[in-house]
Amino acid sequence: MKILSVIRLKGQADRRLRAGHQWIYSNEVNTSETPLKQFTPGDQVVVETAQGKPLGIATINPNTLICGRLISRSTDTFLNKSTLSHRLKIALSLREMTYAAPYYRLVFGDSDGLSGLVVDRFADILVVQISTAGMERVKNEIIEALQDVVKPSAILMKNDGKMRQIEGLETYVEEAFGTVPELVFLQENDVLFQAPVWDGQKTGWFYDHRENRKTMQGFCDGKRVLDVFSYIGGWGVQAASAGATDVTFIDASESALSHVDENLKLNQYEGGSTLMHGDAFEAMQSLIEDKERFDVVVMDPPAFIARRKDIKAGEGAYHRANQLAMRLVAKGGVLVSGSCSMHLETARLHDIIRSNSRQLERFSQLIYRGTQAPDHPVHPAIEETEYLKAMFYRIHNNMGL
Amino acid sequence: MKILSVIRLKGQADRRLRAGHQWIYSNEVNTSETPLKQFTPGDQVVVETAQGKPLGIATINPNTLICGRLISRSTDTFLNKSTLSHRLKIALSLREMTYAAPYYRLVFGDSDGLSGLVVDRFADILVVQISTAGMERVKNEIIEALQDVVKPSAILMKNDGKMRQIEGLETYVEEAFGTVPELVFLQENDVLFQAPVWDGQKTGWFYDHRENRKTMQGFCDGKRVLDVFSYIGGWGVQAASAGATDVTFIDASESALSHVDENLKLNQYEGGSTLMHGDAFEAMQSLIEDKERFDVVVMDPPAFIARRKDIKAGEGAYHRANQLAMRLVAKGGVLVSGSCSMHLETARLHDIIRSNSRQLERFSQLIYRGTQAPDHPVHPAIEETEYLKAMFYRIHNNMGL
Repeated sequence: MKILSVIRLKGQADRRLRAGHQWIYSNEVNTSETPLKQFTPGDQVVVETAQGKPLGIATINPNTLICGRLISRSTDTFLNKSTLSHRLKIALSLREMTYAAPYYRLVFGDSDGLSGLVVDRFADILVVQISTAGMERVKNEIIEALQDVVKPSAILMKNDGKMRQIEGLETYVEEAFGTVPELVFLQENDVLFQAPVWDGQKTGWFYDHRENRKTMQGFCDGKRVLDVFSYIGGWGVQAASAGATDVTFIDASESALSHVDENLKLNQYEGGSTLMHGDAFEAMQSLIEDKERFDVVVMDPPAFIARRKDIKAGEGAYHRANQLAMRLVAKGGVLVSGSCSMHLETARLHDIIRSNSRQLERFSQLIYRGTQAPDHPVHPAIEETEYLKAMFYRIHNNMGL
Repeated sequence: MKILSVIRLKGQADRRLRAGHQWIYSNEVNTSETPLKQFTPGDQVVVETAQGKPLGIATINPNTLICGRLISRSTDTFLNKSTLSHRLKIALSLREMTYAAPYYRLVFGDSDGLSGLVVDRFADILVVQISTAGMERVKNEIIEALQDVVKPSAILMKNDGKMRQIEGLETYVEEAFGTVPELVFLQENDVLFQAPVWDGQKTGWFYDHRENRKTMQGFCDGKRVLDVFSYIGGWGVQAASAGATDVTFIDASESALSHVDENLKLNQYEGGSTLMHGDAFEAMQSLIEDKERFDVVVMDPPAFIARRKDIKAGEGAYHRANQLAMRLVAKGGVLVSGSCSMHLETARLHDIIRSNSRQLERFSQLIYRGTQAPDHPVHPAIEETEYLKAMFYRIHNNMGL
């Protein structure tokens, strides 16, 4: 591949890159010297400091706020099949070091040096999500590199994420090759699932809570468990497999709840289960009125804060949801409070629990502070790569304090 | 017990208490109306708002910055054997819910509603640390309550912490009853240890890293491991038990290293082990010069930041220590970076790794963000109860990024 051009940064705009970040914002480019509009989305260029010193290679999208994504810190490593294969091998070795079975997120974007690319692995089936023009341009090379490194039987391109619109990419879901069934088998913490990869949320499954679900299992034997916003049962089915006497699932999607039922059967669960279809807030309210209480309550909502401007409203939603959840915890039980909103700070969620504890006169203790699984690594210079929380609180009353 | 007196708070000084905290600072007391000097350290008093509304009962020490510690939020629950027994039972039930074997921190001060009291359990032997005048006053009641609730064969009062001087308490280490041997047996993650409870650090053992050590074990099979600041081998012996081919221990204490040796033998470890006695920084430097590299490096130093004013110097020490440690990680290996300094923020430690990664041209990924074990719960309103970090990074080079 031949490099066609250069972008030059303004003044101190190289500092964040030098500190380890990989993104370039459009207002950091000296557009009078190097106009962005000369580029087609997905082009690769040399990035230079204001003084003309080369910093490396980036892919460019002239139409987006994040206009550049650093590919390498040398000027002779491009985003091509060779680079993709090399980084895929390193990504794969991390997952193989961590997990015995081939069910995991194989690529987590920037954190694996592959900004704009996500790959989830379900044994020999891969589900790929591309979110940037830079990655879309090398789509064929990605597929070839995955074939070389992982040797899958099929790849699904689940290219329907919101980011694609911003990047000017079309939305499509299609097999790159091979045949991908409607439901794909996976194991998590030795529990069996089938995930709807074609029409489920994101890639069809959320591997990011794996260790947190494992921790939850330790509290479930012989217990009553409530899984709020259950989706297809990631938490609740694992609670069932860990010996819960009965599990209640709440979700607004009837299709998700039917998958819960199938996943319980897949694990030959013989305990009790209740599927509550409807609004989670209303369902919790009715459980409170019916004086139902649970030893373990999992409150893992969808992102209530999608964008920075939603922070205030979103925090209110987390507060209300966790208050209802706390009221449903039996004396001495465990509340698992999750959040996948990058914009909800861990300290803020912790404070929501503090505040609810005071209002409801509970004595709460944080006993486990979970984050995203190792197959969703955090890049130390890119705070945007860290988003997941799973805070475990033991909730007691009648302590006098 | 009869309440002798009252302290009245100034203006808004009740707000932190109402928000859930349990401490009262001496400058928050209206000492013209209710002089602190009328009290003897350890007295119990009613705490009132500026408007005279009772907030609860606190123990008092007129000679310390933290002059009051809330015992209850009602005016009829005192710190006595009954309250101690009740809270010990709740504390015990959390540990029994969490751990199968009776080896854990049974009481973690404020987080268990027992400010100034720490109890570590080694099966039927308890090691107690009292750090406040309020708790010292009810020492006999503590011993009786522990006997009722836990039925130990012996209790060691390891009353030699630094806080005791500030509280005006004498330093002593003695058996409250029964016989406590020099070395006490314990299990952690099914690995066997003997801990020097009479003259070791703190209670002789640090249960707080249990889950983090368990996580570390997942990376050790067939690997070379380095345990810096090893003390008696908490990390390294567990690495050995998890299948490490060889483990190197660095510690400044010859006695600690001799315990490492005994603990390796206790687990019938047959791999290689190296005990390096001396300054950790010098030892790491010599390992670097000898081109030794390790698949897993554990950097878990003693608190480099004891007080707020040490933050700057302490952060420098963490930076240097982690830089040496990172240089010792083999390609694709794991760096475990721990800190027990409450004053070192997690984000700051993360940034130290970011900065070292750039300086050394490594590609680092945070794969696990560990905190203190569930038997060291965090009180959501008392940030001082949270102190421990164990950040796991995968360290790669030659990524081009």
